Amino acid sequence: MKRYERLSEEVAASIRSGVLQVGDRLPSVRQASLARKVSPSTVFKAYYLLEAKGLIRARERSGYYVVATPDTMPPELEQVSLTQDRRSKVEVSDHVLQVLSATLHRDMVPFGSAFPSPTLFPISRLAQVMAATVQRIRPWSLIDDSSAGNPLLRRAIALRYLADGMTVHTDDIVITAGALEALNLCLSVVTRPGDVVIVESPTFYAALQSLERSNLHAVEVATHPREGIDLAALEHAIQRHRPAACWLMTNFQNPLGSLMPEAKKKALVELLTRYDIPLIEDDVYGELYFGTQRPLPAKAFDESGIVLHCSSFSKSLAPGYRVGWVLGGRYTQAIMRNKLTTSLGTAVPTQAALAAYLQKGGFDKHLRQLRQTLALQQEEVMHAVARHFPEGTRTTRPVGGYFLWVELPEGADVLELHRAALEHGIGLAPGPIFSSRGDFRNCLRLNFGHPLDARMRAGLATLGRLAHMR
Amino acid sequence: MKRYERLSEEVAASIRSGVLQVGDRLPSVRQASLARKVSPSTVFKAYYLLEAKGLIRARERSGYYVVATPDTMPPELEQVSLTQDRRSKVEVSDHVLQVLSATLHRDMVPFGSAFPSPTLFPISRLAQVMAATVQRIRPWSLIDDSSAGNPLLRRAIALRYLADGMTVHTDDIVITAGALEALNLCLSVVTRPGDVVIVESPTFYAALQSLERSNLHAVEVATHPREGIDLAALEHAIQRHRPAACWLMTNFQNPLGSLMPEAKKKALVELLTRYDIPLIEDDVYGELYFGTQRPLPAKAFDESGIVLHCSSFSKSLAPGYRVGWVLGGRYTQAIMRNKLTTSLGTAVPTQAALAAYLQKGGFDKHLRQLRQTLALQQEEVMHAVARHFPEGTRTTRPVGGYFLWVELPEGADVLELHRAALEHGIGLAPGPIFSSRGDFRNCLRLNFGHPLDARMRAGLATLGRLAHMR
Repeated sequence: MKRYERLSEEVAASIRSGVLQVGDRLPSVRQASLARKVSPSTVFKAYYLLEAKGLIRARERSGYYVVATPDTMPPELEQVSLTQDRRSKVEVSDHVLQVLSATLHRDMVPFGSAFPSPTLFPISRLAQVMAATVQRIRPWSLIDDSSAGNPLLRRAIALRYLADGMTVHTDDIVITAGALEALNLCLSVVTRPGDVVIVESPTFYAALQSLERSNLHAVEVATHPREGIDLAALEHAIQRHRPAACWLMTNFQNPLGSLMPEAKKKALVELLTRYDIPLIEDDVYGELYFGTQRPLPAKAFDESGIVLHCSSFSKSLAPGYRVGWVLGGRYTQAIMRNKLTTSLGTAVPTQAALAAYLQKGGFDKHLRQLRQTLALQQEEVMHAVARHFPEGTRTTRPVGGYFLWVELPEGADVLELHRAALEHGIGLAPGPIFSSRGDFRNCLRLNFGHPLDARMRAGLATLGRLAHMR
Repeated sequence: MKRYERLSEEVAASIRSGVLQVGDRLPSVRQASLARKVSPSTVFKAYYLLEAKGLIRARERSGYYVVATPDTMPPELEQVSLTQDRRSKVEVSDHVLQVLSATLHRDMVPFGSAFPSPTLFPISRLAQVMAATVQRIRPWSLIDDSSAGNPLLRRAIALRYLADGMTVHTDDIVITAGALEALNLCLSVVTRPGDVVIVESPTFYAALQSLERSNLHAVEVATHPREGIDLAALEHAIQRHRPAACWLMTNFQNPLGSLMPEAKKKALVELLTRYDIPLIEDDVYGELYFGTQRPLPAKAFDESGIVLHCSSFSKSLAPGYRVGWVLGGRYTQAIMRNKLTTSLGTAVPTQAALAAYLQKGGFDKHLRQLRQTLALQQEEVMHAVARHFPEGTRTTRPVGGYFLWVELPEGADVLELHRAALEHGIGLAPGPIFSSRGDFRNCLRLNFGHPLDARMRAGLATLGRLAHMR
């Protein structure tokens, strides 16, 4: 056994025995070389070997970290419990919302949160740019830039799409107060009260709330944990319910984390074009991929303008700035008019700051770090689930975003688990809030967008213990 | 005749002959004293006399300006042409909107604009404060402050109401993306599609657009040009149409500029309380009074929580920042939930900047200057109307805000006037867009919120000439 192999084996043993845990950082190459009295190149080779075995992973300018190996992962969830496509008047009860708001309290361990940690974003760099930018804002732009949006920002967004292989014109873009406003504007443009809208099953509770507020009916269609909505089931639901629109997340769906393959996105757009049904595409997580390339949205395959594509900077760059956008396809003018009568325009100073930040560069570097961090945190959380949760627990294996969908063994009551967890100061998002019918009673969504500290690690152990008792 | 009386008479003669026109600045006391070889105190006395006669007016730190004397004002509009309270499904046609958007093009002389000139606001001071503030934002506040709003800002708003004699608790305030979002949130909370909402006649077209978007029916109730909505007509409309809400502007109504007297506001709230009908109160112009005191809103007389009071900083301090608020009365919790599902939250950096600005002081000083400027500009525009418009033209005499409602002689076609004006590069807001039935065909709204330059003065002369031909 060569020297580097021996070193590698020693580290692997420490990982197996639990001395080194998932998320722990290995000593730097220099430290290890000094401590073990071997050359730096021996340490390098040992770490490469460990990386090749999937035991550790390098993070840009931060060193090597222990990650979960395949046999420490929970079994993958291959299929979401089937749901029928009964048409249901949406009523997300106030009770569920109250439950959720308790979860979101800052003192809670944030597994129930909808947001990643704000500490993962270049807040102070953005603030610097904003400080420099806001003093150069021309007074008239305060009125001009508030309707369709700051022209520089719209151009910067169009350029990013171009770089990803999608042709977008500046005039196709309407800036909104975050993606949620964009989605609601789209909904209002393509539906009338009483209409049916197709969503995924499970689906993001905010979509259900929007439908409820707009007096619309939700039809929830079976969705695959890896590949997104089932197209056959979708076509069946279209024929049966004649929906006014679909509202889907094709990239890293919330809560499943599913990523629809490109060929399937193409087929989805063809299907909806054939039936002339507009697709409201929520793509707020598209930039948070763990692979090598940004997955194209369904909008990239839209030739007739039926896709209303919404996104924002809230999850990728600037939480709390409330700047999003919509590519409205053939509905762009209607969306712009709707925006004008709903909220008049989007705040000008925040738009100007983001435009300047994007122009200066640095966004891609930040995103690379963010993606790497999220991927690592996901592995840590999955590892903890495998270790602490009851046998028979399955999880999704998202390749982007920051949500893990966990299915407990049949019969588990996650609402009860949720109540017990709250008493321990731990938040989680119980499955039933992702369905207008209260389905998914043995499921929960875990947020892995927060760096795991001791309290969070202990929280996962506690959750596992509590889950054993339900 | 004393020396100062002679000087005063000479200046008055120059005004009568048109050598000095409304809006012109008089020579400074020092200049006049040197030029006429009289003592400064003689000039002071002369100017005091002219001011006492209503011929000139002092502007803080800017000198004396010629203002319109009563006999150069157009006759006051004493009554808006009666409209019946027929219930009408709101449909503000796209054509009218296009007409309006042509008016709003920047090259147009801005009498059709809905905004005051952004040059009247302390933009660079705000930018300085924002630059200093944004770098101190705590990352977590980016999530925490985006739902109900920045606590410091809410407290500063509550303190202002307290100073004006109205008790408001910080928790009663929900921060919104401008007043328009606040109004729409209120509307959505107190109505269901198909409901009737009572508005003024004429009413702000944005209210009509909001009702249209929400599938509501508008009932327009006769409104007095000085004192606001007719309470007898309102009660009649309530009994006949059983509305779900009223949407009114009690202070400096757009487009009339009417100011409801306090006793009438009290009676209004009592009436609505008796019938248990919520009042959505749009008070965005309340700070722009020309008198000595901020007129209280109807909310000040609300004992049962039925008034949903909306306002913003867009017209008083920070155009383009999109920061408004609502005091929701008994609907506050519902409004907050609605905000959460509509746009999640309001941008955090702009809120923090405004909170810091309000804390530092300077707002009241800015407002004093702004009010004085608007009052002077109003007089200039009224003078020009009296001089150039056809005989029989009447106008409102608002004591706040920046809109003048002009009624041309019967038979005038203001849509035709509008088309002709556009060809001359002059914008105006034609009367019919302030009614869901296209009433007020001989009326228009003039914006006097922009400092009058030569082009604008010529524009008013051209408008008058064109009005003679219709």
